[in-house]
Amino acid sequence: MESKAQVQSQNYAADIETIKEAQLRIGPYIHKTPVLSSTTLDGLAGKRLYFKCECFQKGGAFKFRGASNAIFSLTDEEAAKGVVTHSSGNHAAAVSLAAKLRGIPAYIVVPKNAPKCKVENVKRYGGQVIWSETTMLSRESTASKVQQETGAVLIHPFNDTRIISGQGTISLELMEQVPEIDTIIVPISGGGLISGVTLAAKAINPAIRVLAAEPRGADDAAQSKTAGRIITLPQTNTIADGLRASLGDLTWPVVRDLVDDVILVDDRQIVEAMRMCYEILKVAVEPSGAIGLAVVLSDQFRKSDAWKDSSRIGIILSGGNVDLGVLWESFGV
Amino acid sequence: MESKAQVQSQNYAADIETIKEAQLRIGPYIHKTPVLSSTTLDGLAGKRLYFKCECFQKGGAFKFRGASNAIFSLTDEEAAKGVVTHSSGNHAAAVSLAAKLRGIPAYIVVPKNAPKCKVENVKRYGGQVIWSETTMLSRESTASKVQQETGAVLIHPFNDTRIISGQGTISLELMEQVPEIDTIIVPISGGGLISGVTLAAKAINPAIRVLAAEPRGADDAAQSKTAGRIITLPQTNTIADGLRASLGDLTWPVVRDLVDDVILVDDRQIVEAMRMCYEILKVAVEPSGAIGLAVVLSDQFRKSDAWKDSSRIGIILSGGNVDLGVLWESFGV
Repeated sequence: MESKAQVQSQNYAADIETIKEAQLRIGPYIHKTPVLSSTTLDGLAGKRLYFKCECFQKGGAFKFRGASNAIFSLTDEEAAKGVVTHSSGNHAAAVSLAAKLRGIPAYIVVPKNAPKCKVENVKRYGGQVIWSETTMLSRESTASKVQQETGAVLIHPFNDTRIISGQGTISLELMEQVPEIDTIIVPISGGGLISGVTLAAKAINPAIRVLAAEPRGADDAAQSKTAGRIITLPQTNTIADGLRASLGDLTWPVVRDLVDDVILVDDRQIVEAMRMCYEILKVAVEPSGAIGLAVVLSDQFRKSDAWKDSSRIGIILSGGNVDLGVLWESFGV
Repeated sequence: MESKAQVQSQNYAADIETIKEAQLRIGPYIHKTPVLSSTTLDGLAGKRLYFKCECFQKGGAFKFRGASNAIFSLTDEEAAKGVVTHSSGNHAAAVSLAAKLRGIPAYIVVPKNAPKCKVENVKRYGGQVIWSETTMLSRESTASKVQQETGAVLIHPFNDTRIISGQGTISLELMEQVPEIDTIIVPISGGGLISGVTLAAKAINPAIRVLAAEPRGADDAAQSKTAGRIITLPQTNTIADGLRASLGDLTWPVVRDLVDDVILVDDRQIVEAMRMCYEILKVAVEPSGAIGLAVVLSDQFRKSDAWKDSSRIGIILSGGNVDLGVLWESFGV
């Protein structure tokens, strides 16, 4: 088993060493987030659940791990002209905060449909907002333009070794906090989070199972796994605003080879899970953050190969940035 | 200073020994709750803040500490006929859950104006609900009647040594988690929580400051401190449904002698603090639970004697049981 993990670590965008380096680098800046549990939710799931609360991370999401690892990896010369990124929200705020801590400018390309609270986070942390259209093409070309004009370094939201290594530090913490977990459920979007989490977790325990949680209205990862190549969708339709991106060439190999399954849930299930996070767990979680709970409570999971062998399940509550108005509307109270 | 603490411990309803005993007794049943912090809130307060998240306690509030200590203190003979209490919510759910774990019946007298989610918690944990009018007189007489009919043991919500000792375990945890705190802000109602917290905290560090956080519309503790005797109010008017009770003869001496100050805030401030808990800290907190944050951000605190000397402040987020409908209405989004 160990040799398998070692082989794995040589072929992908990050490995246990780069992830441990990231942990040392970002340790002084990040929160070590707590793991919560609930007998009530355990009862509903029929499993022991361990919620890794990245919604309590700085900036309100796991994204600060990768962003701070990337930005504190830069040489002084590289960092001098600042950093640029495009993001619908949490990565943008994380880059703004990490850049502020490093004392360099952050240029943030934000699509017009980004949640208000996430844009406010960017501004709060001193990021300079540059608006773009909502398409990935417009986001990327706007970011390129800013990069050319300012000389800033691009910090990609997920398709970046340093980002993936930073996100992987979640597994180092989680498996120290709850060594007995046999399964981890991780939201999937561009794949930076799940790649880092998977590479670290399987290096520590090759037998651990990693399941991707994906909205049915943005099921490109599930389609990609089936097709054996990266599938991008012409459009997405989900309340989970953080889960609309497609896989990149650095994240796809990890998802293809090491992620055990992708489980799809509907927005209705996501909203119900989000509500349970508020009412039972007492944690404010955004739709993208609640999807892991939606999966573990779903019939889809019960019918999956992973169901029978999963008994102690880590669930990554990836973020907590949600406009209260949007939340309320979705609850329909 | 040490002798002062020792003298204290001989005169009050609980002491560091009964609190340590409680910790041993309830350790297998309770959550050790995490402490969260937020640079944003630190900036707003101008202080370092440490939020002790009792909203994540079993049953969604600190009350389970006292209730489980009381119920697991009973002899088998005492416990056999069950327990009875009257409570607007969190204590009721806590007693129901602790009784369920002990395998004995719980009879819960609930005033008609109790929040729906708290009553649901009682039912979820198997407590038998008996409705009463909203006055303390009706609550107490109904509980007496149940007690006579069933032979159940009364578990008072706060005026009980075992309850006070159980709540005091919060300080044992908090001061181990953040040894450098110099001030603790605690919501005050009947005084069980603040009595336990104060007795434990001052036994460990006699120089620590304990401030009571009280709604202006239920300011009986502030009035009592001024008058030098227990004052009860003919009626209360506050959104903080957990903070409407009056002090008891076991809690009053602690509040009188050892609580350094009572700081009053308006419901508007409580709601604003509750909103910040959701939006910044990502924690679902009920109005009574958010009052400590309201205090630390208030002009009243800035003008108090405690302000200058408080730099590292523990804030007890006492509970997270709030009806989403009530929450939403209060936010007025």
